[in-house]
Amino acid sequence: MDVDTVQLDQGSGGRATHELVEGLFVSAFRNEYLEEMNDSALVSVGPGRVAVTTDSYVVDPIVFPGGNIGSLAVHGTINDLAMRGATPLYLTAGFIIEEGLSLETLRMIVLSMAEAAIEAGVFIVAGDTKVVHRGKADKIFINTSGIGIVPDGIDISGRNARAGDVVLINGTIGDHGMAVLCKREGLAFENEIRSDSAALNRLVHSMLEVFPGIHVLRDPTRGGVATTLNEIASQSAAGIRLFEEALPVRDDVAGACEILGLDPLYVANEGKLLACVPPDAEEPLLRVMRAHPLGRQACRIGEVVEHDAGRVFLRTRIGGHRLVDMLRGEQLPRIC
Amino acid sequence: MDVDTVQLDQGSGGRATHELVEGLFVSAFRNEYLEEMNDSALVSVGPGRVAVTTDSYVVDPIVFPGGNIGSLAVHGTINDLAMRGATPLYLTAGFIIEEGLSLETLRMIVLSMAEAAIEAGVFIVAGDTKVVHRGKADKIFINTSGIGIVPDGIDISGRNARAGDVVLINGTIGDHGMAVLCKREGLAFENEIRSDSAALNRLVHSMLEVFPGIHVLRDPTRGGVATTLNEIASQSAAGIRLFEEALPVRDDVAGACEILGLDPLYVANEGKLLACVPPDAEEPLLRVMRAHPLGRQACRIGEVVEHDAGRVFLRTRIGGHRLVDMLRGEQLPRIC
Repeated sequence: MDVDTVQLDQGSGGRATHELVEGLFVSAFRNEYLEEMNDSALVSVGPGRVAVTTDSYVVDPIVFPGGNIGSLAVHGTINDLAMRGATPLYLTAGFIIEEGLSLETLRMIVLSMAEAAIEAGVFIVAGDTKVVHRGKADKIFINTSGIGIVPDGIDISGRNARAGDVVLINGTIGDHGMAVLCKREGLAFENEIRSDSAALNRLVHSMLEVFPGIHVLRDPTRGGVATTLNEIASQSAAGIRLFEEALPVRDDVAGACEILGLDPLYVANEGKLLACVPPDAEEPLLRVMRAHPLGRQACRIGEVVEHDAGRVFLRTRIGGHRLVDMLRGEQLPRIC
Repeated sequence: MDVDTVQLDQGSGGRATHELVEGLFVSAFRNEYLEEMNDSALVSVGPGRVAVTTDSYVVDPIVFPGGNIGSLAVHGTINDLAMRGATPLYLTAGFIIEEGLSLETLRMIVLSMAEAAIEAGVFIVAGDTKVVHRGKADKIFINTSGIGIVPDGIDISGRNARAGDVVLINGTIGDHGMAVLCKREGLAFENEIRSDSAALNRLVHSMLEVFPGIHVLRDPTRGGVATTLNEIASQSAAGIRLFEEALPVRDDVAGACEILGLDPLYVANEGKLLACVPPDAEEPLLRVMRAHPLGRQACRIGEVVEHDAGRVFLRTRIGGHRLVDMLRGEQLPRIC
């Protein structure tokens, strides 16, 4: 038996599964909830509304500059909770592993998850491991689901954008998608493009401390800023106008996009948030965002307008306007 | 474009994903939480301890007598909550779909999930859809995570078995595993073996009503009754003695197991529970179990003993004893 790779019987639910779960997962994620080894974990969430979310991660390649499928799976689900203003508390982790995956790779991924969870202050309280035959999955897929608690007085939803709101972002766009794509396609630039994958909960916490009345928060992942703003415009029945010259794009990301014929507005981010807030909150929010390591390049990129409900327009550098639709087709499969 | 099968762009996060999500998932799972279409759903759980669990389903074939991967994914996760005595409230659903899966199959699976959720009284409040290239997954994998609430006064855990407890089961063993295996291998018997896949939460509720002091509940899924009892024996540092003549096995399941060289004690179940309870609770519990459609064949199959801590023994029909270990190796890959 090949002891350096994951074997089918490690997904059997029997002895080999127990050894893998106890030897790797429980020891990496170490916490009282998981160590109970019951069918479900018992947790306390305290008073308040509970936020619930789920995401499966199938990114290819599983390791990319700035992260891997494990850290991404923790960051991404934490961010989905943070985008409701929730304090993330607990995650679950479901692994679907292709027979033959190197145990060293699995260990590295799991340790990244543990580290990302500790950094963000959440516990991974329940897990599941399945192993499928070689060729029936691609290395590893990870589902993380998350639970958080929304403090009273917070009401953040894609439905809440109002005409007059400004649209803020915490930094450059397209980094994650281009990092993954360049790695996948073997494209090398002078400086390696790194994913922005990061947990945004602490940044959001700081923002809510100075201004709890934020209308909308959304992380522009698959489909990019363009698709996410379209969702907000549609849910809020408002128009959104973007300013082309204000969109922060790293030079290398812009260059790679140009070479590949991609528009950074449609490229995935994994450490960015879009916020729609009343205009008088712009200044205090940008100040607190820029003081945070994940918000140094925070800026205003657009505004919510009354006309063109449900639509997003880009005011170009030369003063024209073009419609920015949702992503159509699939330019970057398996980006997260 | 083939409009009858799932396409890559339906996992892009863009327009095509929205159409699939709104046209199929949201309309099938219809509830106020999901319809909000935000990054996480806001739910209320009320007071009490919160039970959290996750499971990924990779069963092959995806449709089998008595169920499919969708109904199984709902039942299995509900059961993991019920095994803590929790009232299941909310599920999330994460889909990883292989490009080219027939949309009719996907629709059938999703409708089965919706039906199973309604039957069990839970809401599917959040979801995620990924599509991977043909050959990078096997048709469809589904993760369901679940949240429930544990009423005060309930303390059910694999750690709580006590010497003197009796071990009860709600019916025949091995039905699910043999249904899947016979379907997969094209084995036909006079009567088709059907999976026992079912949500056990209402049965558990009735049991807790007559006896809230149940020590252990566990559903013997992967690894079967033998592996699950070994887990309980190990967690509770107690011995468990099974009575061979008391083990309920359908004739056709026993026959199929014999032909295939399998031991029904190691074959997966998806609608069975094992309960360890004080001896004076046996009679009232068996009465209420037998009155429930999922417990008609409920019976006592063993007892918890002081000696042989951490081990499970079978008292055979002829009066001998043999050690029943956890499943070693993998006799039935992708059974759930």
